Amino acid sequence: MITCSLERMTNLIDTFSKFGATGHGGITRFSLSKEAIQARDEFVKRMKAIGAQIETDDIANVYATLPGSDPNAKRIVMGSHVDSVMNGGNYDGILGVMSAMEVLTTIQKEQIPHIHPITAMIWTNEEGSLYPPCMMSSGIVCYDYLPENVRSKYKEENMMASKGDTMTFQQAIEQSGYKGDKKNRITPNTYQYMFETHIEQGPILEDHHKDIGVVDCVLGMFNYRLKFYGQTTHAGTFPMPKRKDSFLAASHALIELHKRIDSLGYKDLVYTTGEVSCHPNLHTCVPDYFDFCIDVRHEKKEVRDAVLKIVKRFEDEMWDGCICKVEKAWERETVYFDKQLIDYVEESAKELHTNYQRIHSGAGHDAQFAAYMLPTTMIFVQSKDGLSHCEQEYSSPEQCTQGASVMLHAVLKADQT
Amino acid sequence: MITCSLERMTNLIDTFSKFGATGHGGITRFSLSKEAIQARDEFVKRMKAIGAQIETDDIANVYATLPGSDPNAKRIVMGSHVDSVMNGGNYDGILGVMSAMEVLTTIQKEQIPHIHPITAMIWTNEEGSLYPPCMMSSGIVCYDYLPENVRSKYKEENMMASKGDTMTFQQAIEQSGYKGDKKNRITPNTYQYMFETHIEQGPILEDHHKDIGVVDCVLGMFNYRLKFYGQTTHAGTFPMPKRKDSFLAASHALIELHKRIDSLGYKDLVYTTGEVSCHPNLHTCVPDYFDFCIDVRHEKKEVRDAVLKIVKRFEDEMWDGCICKVEKAWERETVYFDKQLIDYVEESAKELHTNYQRIHSGAGHDAQFAAYMLPTTMIFVQSKDGLSHCEQEYSSPEQCTQGASVMLHAVLKADQT
Repeated sequence: MITCSLERMTNLIDTFSKFGATGHGGITRFSLSKEAIQARDEFVKRMKAIGAQIETDDIANVYATLPGSDPNAKRIVMGSHVDSVMNGGNYDGILGVMSAMEVLTTIQKEQIPHIHPITAMIWTNEEGSLYPPCMMSSGIVCYDYLPENVRSKYKEENMMASKGDTMTFQQAIEQSGYKGDKKNRITPNTYQYMFETHIEQGPILEDHHKDIGVVDCVLGMFNYRLKFYGQTTHAGTFPMPKRKDSFLAASHALIELHKRIDSLGYKDLVYTTGEVSCHPNLHTCVPDYFDFCIDVRHEKKEVRDAVLKIVKRFEDEMWDGCICKVEKAWERETVYFDKQLIDYVEESAKELHTNYQRIHSGAGHDAQFAAYMLPTTMIFVQSKDGLSHCEQEYSSPEQCTQGASVMLHAVLKADQT
Repeated sequence: MITCSLERMTNLIDTFSKFGATGHGGITRFSLSKEAIQARDEFVKRMKAIGAQIETDDIANVYATLPGSDPNAKRIVMGSHVDSVMNGGNYDGILGVMSAMEVLTTIQKEQIPHIHPITAMIWTNEEGSLYPPCMMSSGIVCYDYLPENVRSKYKEENMMASKGDTMTFQQAIEQSGYKGDKKNRITPNTYQYMFETHIEQGPILEDHHKDIGVVDCVLGMFNYRLKFYGQTTHAGTFPMPKRKDSFLAASHALIELHKRIDSLGYKDLVYTTGEVSCHPNLHTCVPDYFDFCIDVRHEKKEVRDAVLKIVKRFEDEMWDGCICKVEKAWERETVYFDKQLIDYVEESAKELHTNYQRIHSGAGHDAQFAAYMLPTTMIFVQSKDGLSHCEQEYSSPEQCTQGASVMLHAVLKADQT
């Protein structure tokens, strides 16, 4: 069987790791930044070199297409993103772009016949680091297909006005040199299937000694915020028993929250309280306000609902003299990928003799929005120690090449339909 | 007995509450900001109107002086600050300046004879909101008299280079219009005594139904930081049992810290964990780093030492898979005010038939640095509900006027020496 090139993949990893390198092994490459433009330029240069036709749409998504034998066939697209979080790693997002490039390059170099045009794609602003929310351009492009509760977050005019560090997202697009025509956007009229290769960002594959994950869904999730209202008083003058310390309140509540959720006994549930704010956040003041968000993910709605019931029970509970208020941020249902495409990925992984398993995606990806619009699926590559969104992110060149080879053969199977 | 004017004090409170008014009952008046300059201009206008001589020194401290009968006598100074924290109240700091203005005005209007020149003073940048640290200009002026461990925080060249929002403290001084001659600084060669009137910023006077506090010391304190090091992982992909969540670790440790300190049983001890930081502070990431500071205050060193022993015990303890590191920020000894001046304040409070009591200051003030250099003391005015550093700060005009009257008579007693 034809496989992708380890040599070319190694070169791609080395090359793209330089755009926004932090000097500590990782990258900071915010969407449409100078560093991200370097990565896009490299993509365009290499794709032009294999004869791909380059297009961009009005939100700076980039498409590189090799024509197929049927001029009327819709395109098969493979894509991911080149932007990163602050001090991120060399694989999240960019691996999917490099894999798409490598698949297209293999097809061209090996003269592999195919019916459909095949496209490698860069989605703009997946991380949302400078311009929230994340998965912005897939949210905009797939807007009409999104469920109502998700859609509200991705209203195009709001996205365009969203303020980054020094300019709006619209201004960043104008200045990027990558603004194209709206008619070039990916749509079901012109595109047939979408594939995204990505690092797992978790330790499950490694723990099971697997290199490749055949992804079947993106977990449903909800995000709520627990807010604690106390009273600011001076650190030096206010007796302890009269205080209403919202940080202490939140700490007690957090521990109780863990206790209550853990008592449900769901082994594969994940929940995270990763974002806090504290006011006035001064060493001389008892904090009058503290909040943290809780992000809960599980495939099954009944499991998420059981946890949500626990979260909501905190409403109006008193903790250390502080009242707790519970606020919904957002939620989304589990997104299941296309069964036929999942099978193509699994068959390809098997035929290539890779170590693979079926897996859910706990993280959100552009593919999950595309899945509302087109038959879509994903391929995961093992993440060393499960680490992601940090400079230690690592997948071996061999594993990355395997991931690309699996995508190549899944695409070629899909090409037959 | 001559007393200060309720009418004038009410007018002063109304007037100064406008400079930096937030529209919600409080003020934001950062040092040397436009709003703080308005307050300084008002001070100068009113002090010039009673014939006081205006001087400024090289760090923009302002002095308004009425001459005494002895041209060789040193000055008696009353002062505090006009700057505030973000969304602060109408009394912290400014009450001491208004009281000094009102005492000087009463002396002038009532033609009260006095031997020493008497000075009303504005200390620059007490809060340190834009230019940390707090009590900056008293730290600079009293530098040579400060104990070594305090001194290190107030090295003049560092202060001058300290970066505010958009400029250095030095630039802010240059642009303020209030930069004067270094020879005008308050020194023991030209000044005999210092008085500062301030709101209590705590609930003790109110709880005891007292209007006036005769302050005898500023509590010694220490400030340490507890840091928790875990591992960032993705919220959606990383199984719960393998996580090292530094926020959860800090919450467990905070509760244990309270338990251990409270078990010492010191009733009048205060400790505060008001400032936190969380990294990367994203809802999609398990936090790999969380810290909080602990601020501990008590008059007695042996009490502080017992608490410090508990704080230090956290070093290298493991909490939820995260290691804890303990770092000293600073500490200071209890500063005792001048016994003779304290007695003058107490005698005056008694003669004026006020409800008063002796009290410690839990908060830091410019007077505490001045006390290293000159005989110094403070007068406290009741704070409603003990609230401070917030817009709800309140002391009645009657209480404020009483505070000024007590300072007036204490100054006149000191004037006889």
